[in-house]
Amino acid sequence: MLVNGSTHRTVWSAAEGETVQIIDQSKLPWNFEIENLRCVSEVATAISEMHVRGAGCIGATAGYGMWLAAKKARGSDERLLESAHELIATRPTASNLTWAVERQLTKLRASPVDRWVAVAKQEAETIANEDAAWCQRIGEHGCKLIHEIASQKAPGEPVHILTHCNAGWLAFTDWGSATAPIYAAHRAGIPVHVWVDETRPRNQGARLTAWELMNEKVPHTVIVDNAGGHLMQHGMVDLVITGTDRTTYTGDVANKIGTYLKALAAHDNGIPFYVALPSSTFDWKMRDGVREIPIEERGGSEVSLMDGLAEDGSIQKVDLVNPGSPTANHAFDVTPARLVTGLITERGICAASEDGISRLYPPHERATQ
Amino acid sequence: MLVNGSTHRTVWSAAEGETVQIIDQSKLPWNFEIENLRCVSEVATAISEMHVRGAGCIGATAGYGMWLAAKKARGSDERLLESAHELIATRPTASNLTWAVERQLTKLRASPVDRWVAVAKQEAETIANEDAAWCQRIGEHGCKLIHEIASQKAPGEPVHILTHCNAGWLAFTDWGSATAPIYAAHRAGIPVHVWVDETRPRNQGARLTAWELMNEKVPHTVIVDNAGGHLMQHGMVDLVITGTDRTTYTGDVANKIGTYLKALAAHDNGIPFYVALPSSTFDWKMRDGVREIPIEERGGSEVSLMDGLAEDGSIQKVDLVNPGSPTANHAFDVTPARLVTGLITERGICAASEDGISRLYPPHERATQ
Repeated sequence: MLVNGSTHRTVWSAAEGETVQIIDQSKLPWNFEIENLRCVSEVATAISEMHVRGAGCIGATAGYGMWLAAKKARGSDERLLESAHELIATRPTASNLTWAVERQLTKLRASPVDRWVAVAKQEAETIANEDAAWCQRIGEHGCKLIHEIASQKAPGEPVHILTHCNAGWLAFTDWGSATAPIYAAHRAGIPVHVWVDETRPRNQGARLTAWELMNEKVPHTVIVDNAGGHLMQHGMVDLVITGTDRTTYTGDVANKIGTYLKALAAHDNGIPFYVALPSSTFDWKMRDGVREIPIEERGGSEVSLMDGLAEDGSIQKVDLVNPGSPTANHAFDVTPARLVTGLITERGICAASEDGISRLYPPHERATQ
Repeated sequence: MLVNGSTHRTVWSAAEGETVQIIDQSKLPWNFEIENLRCVSEVATAISEMHVRGAGCIGATAGYGMWLAAKKARGSDERLLESAHELIATRPTASNLTWAVERQLTKLRASPVDRWVAVAKQEAETIANEDAAWCQRIGEHGCKLIHEIASQKAPGEPVHILTHCNAGWLAFTDWGSATAPIYAAHRAGIPVHVWVDETRPRNQGARLTAWELMNEKVPHTVIVDNAGGHLMQHGMVDLVITGTDRTTYTGDVANKIGTYLKALAAHDNGIPFYVALPSSTFDWKMRDGVREIPIEERGGSEVSLMDGLAEDGSIQKVDLVNPGSPTANHAFDVTPARLVTGLITERGICAASEDGISRLYPPHERATQ
């Protein structure tokens, strides 16, 4: 998507072919910096310290990480597995991470050892390209929902869409999941306006989603995470679209902490609540999201310490919390399927239920996802 | 309540009797400063710029403001009314503000003009003392709820209470509303632990409630506003208690933006959701909170700009939001009575319904509240 008018992806192999390059998202929105990752450990650090984040982007970066792992392994299955584990251990909730690493392992084990590096690189490109293509299709399917709402409004009146966190193109390789329908609608000339939850503690909404939308010239307003319920009560939200980090085959959705609260409010106000995801985000083994999906607990300092732009133009870290008070930091929550109006996938829109998901993704096809 | 081991209130008349003194809450938690207010305009500014905030504290401060207004009026009803309007205009949602100002007007109009200053001062002290006494009684009634939950737990296991914003003693003259039962329980030796919502955009939870609880040595943990739903899904919250800025006679509750989302989550997880209030917070004229209660929209810069403690020990203001993105700032939301388990008042606990409220506050007694 566009950054200052030029097209970018979030992760790619460097032109000279020896390193992985990423947009260092921890520097956004204030600085647009490209970071070189030269080995598996640097990839693991980039994922765990959230220089890259978001379901698809983590998956694609881990895919490229396995290319660097294949180089390091020099034919040793043990070394390859060690790197795979190092990558998988970086973020416990994101299912794309395991999915991408296991996809690479399966591919490599079916390949001659002397082809590993080339095969892994090819597979990493394929994973990244598929991610972009799937997100683009999510955009096409989701755009129909927005079009439908727009057609019931006075001409020119915008469709108000609320989103939480960043399930934008920065969270994938391109297009995004939750934002793909918005970008598709905007490019098709449908007037849209996005309520952007700032998404504490890391403010991915205020920092990343707002930055993306501004670069794509999509009208938007940043709000605190507390505001959505009030806006919904007063008819100021037509549609909620969020992303997901892991989705059970029954339609439960693990996404950034606070998503569940927005789903409750949407449900209470009869507002459609959709979750957009490429099928790589499905966990085909999990039935009960609230009970089974592991929820990452991150350091409490993410709650208390906040980066921001100081008056002198520097980036300052400040402590927001009463000195001496402890903090807790659960990174995700699970929205039960009963609160989800539908899932927007690369194959189309389905109900958030075992049945609905099975129609788009019959069990016998799941192994190939 | 305690500040560094000494007892304080939030607002009082200076010992020498010529000015109103307040704790400047905009400086907390980093600096504990007493501010002198010498005229009505300084009182109005202190309220509108939130040096004082919270239902009871605004009411008590406005009460003292009317004492300064009586001085300024020098017997002129017109000048008195002008000051009354200046005070009322500072915060549109807080019903205690109008209540305190009107109570003073009624009292003064029934008094000889040459007694205005003395009468207004006496009435201001009465309002402040009543507020403290009522909050203390709220604590006694609410403590029973906590005791009941504690008695169903293993000995020594804390009762986990979630609160939003600051309905602590800083929001009143003493004790607080939502915190009064917590302080009462803590002093009675019942083990409690408080989940403190940071409460964006102004972080009254992370700054004020956490500061209060630390000074009273009550165990607590600061969380982002997004976290409560997840904690409730996983049995980590036993009880929610919030305050309210205005309560309809049918039990709808206007409180800090985001309260509604916590009420939805409590309801979804079968967790009791109580609202604590002195009866001065009732609006006896309003039936439908969502439709009728005016919701203050404050400046968007409160969302983007945040004060915090920098590494060098100074207080720095930083911008958290993507430069160029607009922000919106609705300060309150309304929680419908159907989501409120009960109201904890100075007269006892009642259902959040016209019927329940009428039992404690029969219509013929309301004029005297």
